[in-house]
Amino acid sequence: MKGTIVWLTGLSASGKSTIATALERELSAMGVHAYVLDGDNIRRGLNADLGFSPEDRAENIRRIGEVAKLFCDAGLVVVTAFISPYRADRQRARSLVDAGDFIEVFVNASLAVCEQRDPKGHYKKARAGKLPDFTGLSAPYEPPEKPEIILDTEHDTPSECVAQVLRCLQGNGRI
Amino acid sequence: MKGTIVWLTGLSASGKSTIATALERELSAMGVHAYVLDGDNIRRGLNADLGFSPEDRAENIRRIGEVAKLFCDAGLVVVTAFISPYRADRQRARSLVDAGDFIEVFVNASLAVCEQRDPKGHYKKARAGKLPDFTGLSAPYEPPEKPEIILDTEHDTPSECVAQVLRCLQGNGRI
Repeated sequence: MKGTIVWLTGLSASGKSTIATALERELSAMGVHAYVLDGDNIRRGLNADLGFSPEDRAENIRRIGEVAKLFCDAGLVVVTAFISPYRADRQRARSLVDAGDFIEVFVNASLAVCEQRDPKGHYKKARAGKLPDFTGLSAPYEPPEKPEIILDTEHDTPSECVAQVLRCLQGNGRI
Repeated sequence: MKGTIVWLTGLSASGKSTIATALERELSAMGVHAYVLDGDNIRRGLNADLGFSPEDRAENIRRIGEVAKLFCDAGLVVVTAFISPYRADRQRARSLVDAGDFIEVFVNASLAVCEQRDPKGHYKKARAGKLPDFTGLSAPYEPPEKPEIILDTEHDTPSECVAQVLRCLQGNGRI
């Protein structure tokens, strides 16, 4: 089976990790070999040498794109859960694999809602000036122009969002 | 199923890639999800920004170790085929995963034999001074002190070597 990259992008607290984890669980239950790349396993390991400067953010996403490509080549559905705020960086990741292998998913919630959720207190810290270059506040987020999927996490539950991704993967013959 | 890292180390032309590819094929035929990391998919992608200085070689192996850990975490048998000449670098890769998850395989052939094989002409170029820091000639190779497996590619065929690795994986309950 050919692999697929499901690339989640969105603001901090938009719901990327929740959806990624639930999607991996659903896929596994269907017998599809899936794996999540997220801050927990990437920022503490492969990219532990990188910070949050524009250059390091670009290198962070470059490496994630390359690792996602390897997983895709190995035949897995790999779900990446990173803010990945810049269009050019996401485009580069997309360009590494064949058309159709890359499903860009805009995990959409307004800044106001994300800031209200703030499960890790990052927005609060950023507002207090303790987190420089924070996406949405002091650093830009460039929403996708033509994502394969837009999830509305303000109004839809995580399981509704996961179902939406699964329908796309099935519709495109990826699973 | 828990994943496993099969870490091949040895001189250029010792037979690492041949064995890695044949091992991946055998494992797949057995229904074991396996994947090879080698120069083709790593040096041209994730590590395309790295050269061959001591620092870049160390970073090369560090990243490969981190990516192998991700594949292991995803439940695959991941086979890495890199010279990985330094003990400290291999030890660091080993230390990333649980004991038993890392199988170090010394792909052993003498320098004389490797240089005679020289399928890509690298030794010839290195002897002519056109490849600096070439492992075995102008840069050191530190053989493993306690590898889980030693393959004798001077006397054993690739399929005999692959069978030896498979016996180890089976004996250790990894497949």
